[in-house]
Amino acid sequence: MFKSSQNKEFFLGIDGGGSKCKAIITNGNNEILGTGLSGPGNPLHGFEQATNSIIESATLALKDADLEGVNLHNINAGIGLAGVNLPAQLKQMQLWKHPFKQMFLAHDLMIACLGAHQVNNGAVIITGTGSCGFSCIDEQEFLIGGHGFPQGDKGSGAWFGLQATKQVLLSIDGIVEPSIMNEMLLTKLSCSDATSIVEMIVSKKATFYAQLANIVFDAANLGDKVAIAIIEEGVEYIDTLARILLAKKPARISLLGGIAPILKAWLSQEVQMQLSESLSPPEVGAVIFVQQKLALQQDEIGQFN
Amino acid sequence: MFKSSQNKEFFLGIDGGGSKCKAIITNGNNEILGTGLSGPGNPLHGFEQATNSIIESATLALKDADLEGVNLHNINAGIGLAGVNLPAQLKQMQLWKHPFKQMFLAHDLMIACLGAHQVNNGAVIITGTGSCGFSCIDEQEFLIGGHGFPQGDKGSGAWFGLQATKQVLLSIDGIVEPSIMNEMLLTKLSCSDATSIVEMIVSKKATFYAQLANIVFDAANLGDKVAIAIIEEGVEYIDTLARILLAKKPARISLLGGIAPILKAWLSQEVQMQLSESLSPPEVGAVIFVQQKLALQQDEIGQFN
Repeated sequence: MFKSSQNKEFFLGIDGGGSKCKAIITNGNNEILGTGLSGPGNPLHGFEQATNSIIESATLALKDADLEGVNLHNINAGIGLAGVNLPAQLKQMQLWKHPFKQMFLAHDLMIACLGAHQVNNGAVIITGTGSCGFSCIDEQEFLIGGHGFPQGDKGSGAWFGLQATKQVLLSIDGIVEPSIMNEMLLTKLSCSDATSIVEMIVSKKATFYAQLANIVFDAANLGDKVAIAIIEEGVEYIDTLARILLAKKPARISLLGGIAPILKAWLSQEVQMQLSESLSPPEVGAVIFVQQKLALQQDEIGQFN
Repeated sequence: MFKSSQNKEFFLGIDGGGSKCKAIITNGNNEILGTGLSGPGNPLHGFEQATNSIIESATLALKDADLEGVNLHNINAGIGLAGVNLPAQLKQMQLWKHPFKQMFLAHDLMIACLGAHQVNNGAVIITGTGSCGFSCIDEQEFLIGGHGFPQGDKGSGAWFGLQATKQVLLSIDGIVEPSIMNEMLLTKLSCSDATSIVEMIVSKKATFYAQLANIVFDAANLGDKVAIAIIEEGVEYIDTLARILLAKKPARISLLGGIAPILKAWLSQEVQMQLSESLSPPEVGAVIFVQQKLALQQDEIGQFN
């Protein structure tokens, strides 16, 4: 039904993160024909769930594009996944008996960077639930930070939320000065005192704390000194990531992730001035990635002919 | 077989913590006749496990004292438990159909303080896996800190271990200065780089991090600046707890817990000078507690006669 000509070829781009998996299907003219959204796609938190989410999002994207008659077996997929920077998860995913024509696997930062800049020369700082810096210049990849919660991911949503919680507990104890975050956090968690906060947050994960990040910025905007000190510490780290990445002279650098819009204004002027707007989301980066890999295969075939 | 005279009465003292439950049995002359050790006794981490541990440690203490013929039903028990400062856990424990003659329940800080000072007027700072301050003066109890990991418990073993891990990851990334803790942590965890550290520590709990605390002190003793800065921050908090407790004018104040011996030398001279050695462990405090409660009952009976 669909012959593999330049214009009738389809490409799947998939961005699999800790909370959801996004897929797009494009044609050879790079037009997005359909999108699909499913559950968590990070194999670190479950290989079966991640692979199910990948297939589900791809199937939904085909359906959205009215291409239900097309088999995944006939489509090349570029898949960017959180977690595959860890060797065990990468190996597990590489051994997956996937349903695609070919699967090209990258970590989520690679496709975020490709999507943001649409060329293979750029850097990104991501600050969402977690945080990290990444650049890809002349095919040299460089990753900094991103060591997870609570041991790393400074300047991320989860980090801001945890810092707020820590300082509120110290403030309620009278060990740091009074903060308007105290009332904000008690209200947000429907708690009445430090004990009920502790009961509420026991064993909570990064995604929970990331939802508390706004408290810090709201309080800082009202002049709260405790909140401003937290932001200054987080921003110092993000500024440092930016300087380290800028020293590598990327063509472009972008700040991405859920708290990027709110954090940007707090960065140093020097860093802010050098930030470029992201051109497209990671799932578009995944399509660019698969096209680059296919072009390389063509080059290699060409060399032998 | 055993008549309840002053000298043939037995008392159980139990200290139930997050990792183990310790019991002693004493006679009316306050001589320790036997001891018992069992598993975790914090009801926050499982009511059934905690109550089983309490019974097991008590039974082992009786056996150790060659008092297997004595029924728990004939013995008054003082039980100090971590976790019963939280209302839900306290209520659950109070409703427990316990096997003792009478059960007198206290939180673990109360019996630690009673054990350390053997009188009802004192303060303790505990820094083991977690940290907190407590005083009991003229029957007024005061608790500060102790909000759990990772949101509280500053200056505790788990806090030192997590700070070490954070700083090592930042140092490996070149964001903070080189530290000899880097090599120490890699060796301790049998890891080769930041990625393998992250794989090793994902989702680890406070007890895991507490085992890393020594790295900070070992490195600081070798002059490592990153380690010294961590200790200074932790010590500032413990010094603050001490000053807040000292302002309440306790008869005595002691520093207790697993890292107390190593931390003591880092405290301010002013605080160090006011610290007293602990007189006895928490399980002895639990026996003092049950004896005080029984004396109160006698007084009340006396008032009506």
